[in-house]
Amino acid sequence: MQSISFVPHAAGRVTAVLAQLKDYLGEKVSTNQSVCEAHSHGEALELARLPAGVVFAETTEDVSTVLALCHAAYVPVVAFGAGTSVEGHVTPPEHAVSLDLSRMTAVLQVNAADMDCRVQAGLTRQELNVRLRDTGLFFPVDPGGEATLGGMCATRASGTAAVHYGTIKENVLGLTVVMANGEVIKTGGRVRKSSTGYDLTSLFIGSEGTLGIITEVQLRLHGIPEQLSAAICQFENLEDAVRTAVEIIQAGVPIARVELMDDVQMAASIRYSGLDELRPITTLFFEFAGGPASVREQIEVTEALATENNGLGFAWADTPDERNRLWKARHNAFWAAKALSPGARVISTDCIVPISRLTDLIVGVKADIQVSGLQAAILGHVGDGNFHTLIMTEDSAAGHAKALELDRKIVARALALDGSCSGEHGVGVGKLEFLEQEHGEPALGVMRTLKMALDPRNILNPGKLLPEGLAYIG
Amino acid sequence: MQSISFVPHAAGRVTAVLAQLKDYLGEKVSTNQSVCEAHSHGEALELARLPAGVVFAETTEDVSTVLALCHAAYVPVVAFGAGTSVEGHVTPPEHAVSLDLSRMTAVLQVNAADMDCRVQAGLTRQELNVRLRDTGLFFPVDPGGEATLGGMCATRASGTAAVHYGTIKENVLGLTVVMANGEVIKTGGRVRKSSTGYDLTSLFIGSEGTLGIITEVQLRLHGIPEQLSAAICQFENLEDAVRTAVEIIQAGVPIARVELMDDVQMAASIRYSGLDELRPITTLFFEFAGGPASVREQIEVTEALATENNGLGFAWADTPDERNRLWKARHNAFWAAKALSPGARVISTDCIVPISRLTDLIVGVKADIQVSGLQAAILGHVGDGNFHTLIMTEDSAAGHAKALELDRKIVARALALDGSCSGEHGVGVGKLEFLEQEHGEPALGVMRTLKMALDPRNILNPGKLLPEGLAYIG
Repeated sequence: MQSISFVPHAAGRVTAVLAQLKDYLGEKVSTNQSVCEAHSHGEALELARLPAGVVFAETTEDVSTVLALCHAAYVPVVAFGAGTSVEGHVTPPEHAVSLDLSRMTAVLQVNAADMDCRVQAGLTRQELNVRLRDTGLFFPVDPGGEATLGGMCATRASGTAAVHYGTIKENVLGLTVVMANGEVIKTGGRVRKSSTGYDLTSLFIGSEGTLGIITEVQLRLHGIPEQLSAAICQFENLEDAVRTAVEIIQAGVPIARVELMDDVQMAASIRYSGLDELRPITTLFFEFAGGPASVREQIEVTEALATENNGLGFAWADTPDERNRLWKARHNAFWAAKALSPGARVISTDCIVPISRLTDLIVGVKADIQVSGLQAAILGHVGDGNFHTLIMTEDSAAGHAKALELDRKIVARALALDGSCSGEHGVGVGKLEFLEQEHGEPALGVMRTLKMALDPRNILNPGKLLPEGLAYIG
Repeated sequence: MQSISFVPHAAGRVTAVLAQLKDYLGEKVSTNQSVCEAHSHGEALELARLPAGVVFAETTEDVSTVLALCHAAYVPVVAFGAGTSVEGHVTPPEHAVSLDLSRMTAVLQVNAADMDCRVQAGLTRQELNVRLRDTGLFFPVDPGGEATLGGMCATRASGTAAVHYGTIKENVLGLTVVMANGEVIKTGGRVRKSSTGYDLTSLFIGSEGTLGIITEVQLRLHGIPEQLSAAICQFENLEDAVRTAVEIIQAGVPIARVELMDDVQMAASIRYSGLDELRPITTLFFEFAGGPASVREQIEVTEALATENNGLGFAWADTPDERNRLWKARHNAFWAAKALSPGARVISTDCIVPISRLTDLIVGVKADIQVSGLQAAILGHVGDGNFHTLIMTEDSAAGHAKALELDRKIVARALALDGSCSGEHGVGVGKLEFLEQEHGEPALGVMRTLKMALDPRNILNPGKLLPEGLAYIG
């Protein structure tokens, strides 16, 4: 006669695992209500769910211990960094452990001569740059929030500097990843390129904690440019501004940043960030970097293109303080939009199209906003073809539904123009419904096969990134 | 009683499949001896084996037909492009079909405004650039051989321009891939970045035909620079030349190319390419690209660094003809080495290290060459830390063994310096023995799991890229 093994239900399993984890990790494990609440969501508040407990990992070994035990007990695990995700990535599945990496902030090595470094995944990009201060080097990838580098890898983040320096994907040389069963692997290395083996680094970048948990990151660094110049140019007409940005890229100007804020966003940002010298009309923010002659040359081409497209002249930010004030205003766009309509929810969409389609898209989105009756600001990394609509809506189920309806229209436009439903925020749960249209069932089937192969017990952030459906059967 | 099914042996299976394929694809299928011989190897001649037959695919559907039938019959398939691989990638497994994609040369779309295009995988990079001639755009990735773009994707190729434009990996936006069972998927798209779903594009790039067969490639293109300037600088001393290259990169000069040829290679190339004005000593080849002011600035910094490191002055190639002559000499380095010792085999090694380790490595390799008693030239993409040793050896088993012994020493040095055993040639069978040391058993286990998940019948180029061993069990 076979012995009958007792399989406790999901709630019981996670309680048992948390008790085991306390034996191994002691004070690093918490089931405190307010700790659990702080780990119940990212910035997409409506997607909240409490984890059964939180583990504050301090080392790769801690992460390995958590996964080995959760794997054995079929308990789901979601990694948590800074909680800045806007698509519900860090919202725990049911009866799950939230694995907080924010204590893992060590800079493990800096190789200044090779312009690379290795950090723990919980370090934020801002803090990394503070610690690099004496090296003459910096890390350029700058998503809006104060995100951790592990979280940035997991969501394939980018930001305002991607047009010049690339996204996180182009700036990661290798990773340490803990697999579903607790096994630790290293991917990539320190070399600039290699042709040996499958590109595991790229597989984990953008995998949103569903294939493994990233604990260390080897990053490319860049020399602080000899010269930095920032300027803005305002336009009476949205199309003229977008066309200017598009033509700068097409002309091959190696511009460091080129960002757009529309009239609504400018009105919000002038008020929030005290940009009183500016008018509430469409504005391009530029940054030029390089040697002095190269910067001069870039500026000449850019000014000529802006003038041809009816730009209202360049205003320069010459001092570091002025430059910081301008870019801080850009980075605070979300908060400016929030301050514009107190009590409202601000929901950020995130689309990208080939740059030649960008004018069509933004003009269409402006019309959609008009029809929706909602207030919404447009801003974005126009040099990449990537932009966000910040939709301000009543903080209620009806308000969310209205915003989502507008978002769906925007995504539909982007996909019809050979675009993607997310340039940098990721899928999480917020974008699941668009994946089939964007990638097609066969490619999704291959993705599901990879997920099943690497996480057969489906404990790694289940329910995120991949819509339900069939796997590819080779 | 169960019916007994007759499973023919491997030779019988492939014969049966070729007969089926003739029904579907007619004249595209060949079992002609000389055709099979032409598909028995790449440039690593000693690794030859005849395929049972060759199929000349003309469409993605043809490829899908081949894989569906071979999959059903458990018959291995190896893709064949231009046959320029030097690591045995295209050598057929036993009882296999060689799937030749060289007729798939269509340019399917050129989106000049977005600087991208879509091509069939059998098009060569040179031919693509011919067809782009009227667009003001070009594709920069330039491995030594006249490789196909599909082959370049499959081996994660790069070349002399990677220091500025990146490798093939950074220049592919998406792929069409036929999976083991004949299913067709599309990966990526036309956008510059996206955060939606696993990065399948990067997974297939560098997978050497072991996970799927690439039939179409969406490529990034680049504007032809306003100005191009080329120059060479000679050095009495190898270390001085390497140090110059390293310091150029560390200074952040956006140099288009920086290549090194050592004294042995220069002697060969002076003779082969008629560079009679040069001396047979270590030489750096430079190319500068951009706006005129930026180019001037780059040249100033580079010349200053070369002078500090005892460079013997710059010689300029001012006309396009002069420039082509210089770079043609660089691209013909392999043939120059071959001409230096007629009857000998020339075996190209391919290592990469972080750039700060490059001087140590090359000096060490020079000593290894001395000890080996073999003649060998060093040349490489020093801006990436990547270089090749062209070992000239007697064309015999003993000669090959001696060359391999030297290669092993070079790889061991590179791996000890945080390097990789291949910067751009790939693994094939030639580098299999080094993968465990470079990646570690756990990462190889994950790679094997991916292979088993996507190609459970092991029909896609079996025996390449992955050494035998255990898979990761999640």
